[in-house]
Amino acid sequence: MTATLGDIAAQIDAQLQGDPATGITGVASLHRAAPGELSFYTNKRYAADLAATRAGAVVLAAADAPDCPVASLIVADPYLAYTRAAAFLHPPAPFTPGIHPCAVIGVGTAIDADCLVGANTVIGDNVSIGAGTYIGPGCVIEAGARVGAQCRLHPGVVLMARVEIGARVLLHPGVVLGADGFGLANDAGRWLKIPQRGSVSVGDDVEIGANTTIDRGALDNTVIEAGVKIDNQVQVGHNVRIGEHTAIAGAAVIAGSVTIGRRCMIGGASAIAGHIDIADDVVIAGMSGVSNSIREAGVYASGIPITDQKTWRKNMARFRNLDALARKIFRLEKLVE
Amino acid sequence: MTATLGDIAAQIDAQLQGDPATGITGVASLHRAAPGELSFYTNKRYAADLAATRAGAVVLAAADAPDCPVASLIVADPYLAYTRAAAFLHPPAPFTPGIHPCAVIGVGTAIDADCLVGANTVIGDNVSIGAGTYIGPGCVIEAGARVGAQCRLHPGVVLMARVEIGARVLLHPGVVLGADGFGLANDAGRWLKIPQRGSVSVGDDVEIGANTTIDRGALDNTVIEAGVKIDNQVQVGHNVRIGEHTAIAGAAVIAGSVTIGRRCMIGGASAIAGHIDIADDVVIAGMSGVSNSIREAGVYASGIPITDQKTWRKNMARFRNLDALARKIFRLEKLVE
Amino acid sequence: MTATLGDIAAQIDAQLQGDPATGITGVASLHRAAPGELSFYTNKRYAADLAATRAGAVVLAAADAPDCPVASLIVADPYLAYTRAAAFLHPPAPFTPGIHPCAVIGVGTAIDADCLVGANTVIGDNVSIGAGTYIGPGCVIEAGARVGAQCRLHPGVVLMARVEIGARVLLHPGVVLGADGFGLANDAGRWLKIPQRGSVSVGDDVEIGANTTIDRGALDNTVIEAGVKIDNQVQVGHNVRIGEHTAIAGAAVIAGSVTIGRRCMIGGASAIAGHIDIADDVVIAGMSGVSNSIREAGVYASGIPITDQKTWRKNMARFRNLDALARKIFRLEKLVE
Repeated sequence: MTATLGDIAAQIDAQLQGDPATGITGVASLHRAAPGELSFYTNKRYAADLAATRAGAVVLAAADAPDCPVASLIVADPYLAYTRAAAFLHPPAPFTPGIHPCAVIGVGTAIDADCLVGANTVIGDNVSIGAGTYIGPGCVIEAGARVGAQCRLHPGVVLMARVEIGARVLLHPGVVLGADGFGLANDAGRWLKIPQRGSVSVGDDVEIGANTTIDRGALDNTVIEAGVKIDNQVQVGHNVRIGEHTAIAGAAVIAGSVTIGRRCMIGGASAIAGHIDIADDVVIAGMSGVSNSIREAGVYASGIPITDQKTWRKNMARFRNLDALARKIFRLEKLVE
Repeated sequence: MTATLGDIAAQIDAQLQGDPATGITGVASLHRAAPGELSFYTNKRYAADLAATRAGAVVLAAADAPDCPVASLIVADPYLAYTRAAAFLHPPAPFTPGIHPCAVIGVGTAIDADCLVGANTVIGDNVSIGAGTYIGPGCVIEAGARVGAQCRLHPGVVLMARVEIGARVLLHPGVVLGADGFGLANDAGRWLKIPQRGSVSVGDDVEIGANTTIDRGALDNTVIEAGVKIDNQVQVGHNVRIGEHTAIAGAAVIAGSVTIGRRCMIGGASAIAGHIDIADDVVIAGMSGVSNSIREAGVYASGIPITDQKTWRKNMARFRNLDALARKIFRLEKLVE
Repeated sequence: MTATLGDIAAQIDAQLQGDPATGITGVASLHRAAPGELSFYTNKRYAADLAATRAGAVVLAAADAPDCPVASLIVADPYLAYTRAAAFLHPPAPFTPGIHPCAVIGVGTAIDADCLVGANTVIGDNVSIGAGTYIGPGCVIEAGARVGAQCRLHPGVVLMARVEIGARVLLHPGVVLGADGFGLANDAGRWLKIPQRGSVSVGDDVEIGANTTIDRGALDNTVIEAGVKIDNQVQVGHNVRIGEHTAIAGAAVIAGSVTIGRRCMIGGASAIAGHIDIADDVVIAGMSGVSNSIREAGVYASGIPITDQKTWRKNMARFRNLDALARKIFRLEKLVE
């Protein structure tokens, strides 16, 4: 869409230094933006880009406005204000409602008239799809699932039987919700499968990244609360509960029966062992391993950063004997004192 | 299905304390179970739930029977007995056989009359599908693949050319069997692809989780033996062999040409380097890295658990100098002695 | 195809010891190869297999030719020469061009006459597909995407809107290119989504493994340069740039805004934190964590290999107090000196 700088200033509550009638058609990076585009500036690292920008306007803090060669939109939190402006300029692409003739729809399934169902999508029996929801091509939604209003399911999403998702949920390609949890009992060396009778319940305003998997509960539901944001290739085991507004970065692994609090941030490539409880407002750094419950808000880490391989080899040799080294220290202490 | 407590007691070889005529329709957790549902109790942590349960009956050990306010099914191993009862009460959902009119079936492909092939599934030429097998919507099975009897392929499974799976194999959504292994030769800085001529062979009673990938062998087959259970998002490289009844938890990474023995348990988010051999009955803890072969049964680990970030930073600074610290200790030892 | 040993020797520039008229139909491992098959030998570990082989010929180094009981193809780099021979004997399977009647093609989309589009594949509006490209069944290509010549998209690949891929690109099943990057701004405890306006640009001769995901850029494109090879289940965040001829092994995790140089090798199950720069010719060992930029070519590592669990427990207890142990050492040094 096209908006004027005046519209945008009003939308993001900014002080405008420039012509409010200037037309803006979208956002772009400082070094690429054309005169009809909006950019933002938050990091001194890009000072040269700011000085040279041809953008129509830049969202920035008051202190940086003197360095801006074009119109300024001055705000307290430029990153947040830019996000609002970008969302205003680039709403989700509109679509023409309708059910593609190559979609297959089950019996007793209710799809609102203003929905889109893409080609080769298969929807089972007794499913309900809320108003304004977009379901891309090649999805499969099994019997009894419920999808809220104004959701977007991108191509190739799979919702297994009885999965429930709220309103305004965004699912990226390859997401699988409601596959069986990994529940097994050992019978004299052979594994018996434990039927997975629960489902998955996803709250409003949740976003789930490409190829992420969330298993159905064994007895009760796996629960993703409202406002949770999950990146790509995250694995969430059965019986997990993730609290409101928690964000989980790419390739994190959440084992079964974990409870994560509200407003947590779980770093990429981290792993949380089964049956762990994590309090509200906990931050786990990327590539960390969590094997005990965390009772207090705070930042936690365990990842080991790289060194050159030669140093690593030497340190590893010592690490394997760390307990023996510690005992040497204690013995020396006694000898010396 | 509905069964009586008498039926269930006979099925799981339990001593029943209660009315054998009581009807049971399914399983539920202790705190949710209704009078027509079966639950189980194995962990003192849930003693309050047991005391308050309204379940129709509880599977438990003899020592706990006095604390059970409802009918008891007394067994030596309550978890295993519960699993058997749950499997008895909740067999895989029955289906009406048939090939959906929107499925596409190749030439020379043999599909038993009691199979189901879902909408928009594409099956290539010269494929064979065994009796009683269920193939969900949106699957692709390439030419020459062989699927055994009574398998379940959930939506969106891909079997590449010539992949062979045994009987009663359960594949969850997004599983890919038989993509090319990562075989490359370096030619003066450029990578040449090595044709991957083997396939994947999966034994009977194997279960493979959502979005897990198992690559075809370079020359011979990648082999998953009978009874192996693999969780979601596991990566298995080419030429791997996994022994009978081994279980692999979520997001584990098995590099190429690894051999894993029988009855192993590979923890979630662990990684095994290429060309490693692992003996029978090895347990690898979650988030461990295996870079040398393991010749003896036992439990192995290497994951580093989190601390608060401040402690982590201090410890990391020391860790980077671990070899130097060790040398200091040895020097001190000499000085003191 | 069938070739003579003479053809193959010419193709790979080998010195042939044997009958140039011998017919060869394919490649096989030393212990399985039949007289009409070609094998290779590079590792003394397989000396017994070489001695017993029934292969039609073996590609090997001059020093090993005396031990070869069958015809020899003598070269300086047997692995590379074997790769060339295998590629010569096993070119990608030919296909009969055509658009399957169950494919769905958008308006304004241009597909060359010698392409194949498989059953139930959905291609949006204004897409262009280059000459000789094969698109398997069950793919989805969204509006405005561009696919080069002689590509192979295996079943279930998803290309989101405006994604561009070069010539001879090979995409394995379940690959998702161009899903939204994980861009969020925090607004008083709630997450606002930042529109992801860039796309993904993939160069010529790139191979991407099964279920790998590469996100679209926030403003500019995520870029995968020519000749890059990526294994299965790799996650590549938004705004990443990967340099020419870099190889990335399975389940590696590359966070957003990372730049990786040319000819790097990134080990399996490794993770690179956001906004990191990595120089050309860097090798990262498997299961390593990279949290700072790497300015110099070389080999880097941080993974901790397993020990038996008892040793691991003791070492971990010491590790948690590593800073305190180091302080003890420094104090002892002062006392002793």
